[in-house]
Amino acid sequence: MEKKDRYNVAVVGATGAVGQKIIETLEKRNFPVGELKLLASARSAGQQVTFHGQTYTVEEARPEAFEGIDFALFSAGGSISEKLAPAAVERGAVVIDNTSAFRMVPEVPLVVPEVNPHMIGQHQGIIANPNCSTIQMVVALKPLYDAYGIERIILSTYQAVSGAGQNAINDLLDQTRAILDGKQPEPKVLPVGSLPKKHQQAFNVIPQIDAFTDNGYTKEEMKMVNETRKIFGDPDIQVTPTTVRVPVLYGHSESVYIETKDAFDMEDVVQLLQQAPGIKVVDNPAAQEYPMAVTAEGSYDTYVGRIRRDLFHPRGLNLWVVSDNVLKGAAWNAVQIAEYMVKTR
Amino acid sequence: MEKKDRYNVAVVGATGAVGQKIIETLEKRNFPVGELKLLASARSAGQQVTFHGQTYTVEEARPEAFEGIDFALFSAGGSISEKLAPAAVERGAVVIDNTSAFRMVPEVPLVVPEVNPHMIGQHQGIIANPNCSTIQMVVALKPLYDAYGIERIILSTYQAVSGAGQNAINDLLDQTRAILDGKQPEPKVLPVGSLPKKHQQAFNVIPQIDAFTDNGYTKEEMKMVNETRKIFGDPDIQVTPTTVRVPVLYGHSESVYIETKDAFDMEDVVQLLQQAPGIKVVDNPAAQEYPMAVTAEGSYDTYVGRIRRDLFHPRGLNLWVVSDNVLKGAAWNAVQIAEYMVKTR
Repeated sequence: MEKKDRYNVAVVGATGAVGQKIIETLEKRNFPVGELKLLASARSAGQQVTFHGQTYTVEEARPEAFEGIDFALFSAGGSISEKLAPAAVERGAVVIDNTSAFRMVPEVPLVVPEVNPHMIGQHQGIIANPNCSTIQMVVALKPLYDAYGIERIILSTYQAVSGAGQNAINDLLDQTRAILDGKQPEPKVLPVGSLPKKHQQAFNVIPQIDAFTDNGYTKEEMKMVNETRKIFGDPDIQVTPTTVRVPVLYGHSESVYIETKDAFDMEDVVQLLQQAPGIKVVDNPAAQEYPMAVTAEGSYDTYVGRIRRDLFHPRGLNLWVVSDNVLKGAAWNAVQIAEYMVKTR
Repeated sequence: MEKKDRYNVAVVGATGAVGQKIIETLEKRNFPVGELKLLASARSAGQQVTFHGQTYTVEEARPEAFEGIDFALFSAGGSISEKLAPAAVERGAVVIDNTSAFRMVPEVPLVVPEVNPHMIGQHQGIIANPNCSTIQMVVALKPLYDAYGIERIILSTYQAVSGAGQNAINDLLDQTRAILDGKQPEPKVLPVGSLPKKHQQAFNVIPQIDAFTDNGYTKEEMKMVNETRKIFGDPDIQVTPTTVRVPVLYGHSESVYIETKDAFDMEDVVQLLQQAPGIKVVDNPAAQEYPMAVTAEGSYDTYVGRIRRDLFHPRGLNLWVVSDNVLKGAAWNAVQIAEYMVKTR
């Protein structure tokens, strides 16, 4: 892509929870947008969306729509990306894909700008955005990885329902209202829209995100294993994940235990985290200050707190990591990749 | 205490969330109650409570109230236990104390009947009930501890607000209603009633339960470390806890990773758990079946699922452990200790 003053941008999945945040983020960041194309399924075509005070009509996503597009940001589900991303690339667009479709394809860079921006230059048309729960964890771990190395990670997540889309948000709100009204909740979407069984999510915790794989781990958990290794370019990191959905609207929280390769000093650890890009340290137990989902909502940063040495393992460290899953976990990370490409041109 | 047909029972904190469940549990289990004394603070005295169809009036808890009492079940806070438990013991009662007041006193047995019933016989008047989050974890780990030994435990909790009492339940419900009505929630109790700062718990996750200690871990976390060691009678188990409050009313969930001393076979692990007292295995990923807070509510059992071998560590095992924190985590464990003493007399 040559250097330009303005870039033509297509947003695929423009009416979804992440698509809307992408449009908002492009506006907020004053991304140099030339032509803007808002694409979605035929069902959503015709809807109107405002961008910088101008009204845009959502069009059906078709191969021809990518003619003349510089950046195509996809967040309409894996099957749409599989079908249309190659068509966009053929027409000269760079695809930044928010689905899992291409993440583990060896030639496709899997990028978190704070962690492995050097991979962006190696793209062959498609750049993949990692899974939301992976992104915030690798942002938090990057400075420690560089300073000490990381041997293993054992983590448990507290993930917001917005990670499962707008329907899941509505499902949680409807269930909650029913319970407060003394009625039986009727789960319709959660835990996994495409699977038969639905569970109560209101006032409940569900230890399933995405479908199960044969080894007893869910796909979400295996993403955290495989994507973390690919992003750090380190096939030896051992990741033990348990991913869990909690009745929260926005903001994933993660309880992360790591063992470093080299010894660390606690003051250095805190300083490294404070100085790292994209991280805000909130860690003042005496004042009851620590990261929380509701305070991270709406921010681009990854919040880190409850930083404490393991009581027994000399190279063990505990962290509490929180970020807005729809922003840094999806929309902002995608726009950030596009910004990086525009700036370093 | 001599063998009798009926035992005089005092419930201290009879109007609290746990006290009420103790009374319900004594009734449900048909515990051989002779005289029943319901005790509480002066503020709650005069309230009426029904037990086996008969109405009882709550009296103020004073030393003289324990005259002639065989079992005194305390759940009115640590300072009340410290003040009144010795008075009850002096008058010949066996105290089963649900607070943290005596748990770490060396002469006081800390008992979970499925795990260390042999300690009951060593009491000198007071038997302590462990912390709710510890109880369900040690029930789940007991058969594995016996079969393989346990070197270390790394765990993250998802704890219900009922663990902080009836006021915390009301606080969560009030906050939730406010948010659904489009109003600003006004947190009044959570995360810790006695501390100055209050946080939003509705649609939020709070990584603080009880006050912080100097090492950066909370008291709740240190309870899990110290109580687990005392209950197993094993000062070498390494416990790394992160305890977290989630917007759930009843039922604590726990993501538990362990490393055993000896190698294990997965089929044996499942069988050991299935055969262990107090455990129900719910683990059928293909059918989306796993333990959840809302399905554990009201049950005396500890539910275990998501049983899976670590992907990397040969002696690493992951479990998802759920139990009703007010029942097995408090009321039922206390009544169960009394039942054990009555049966083995």
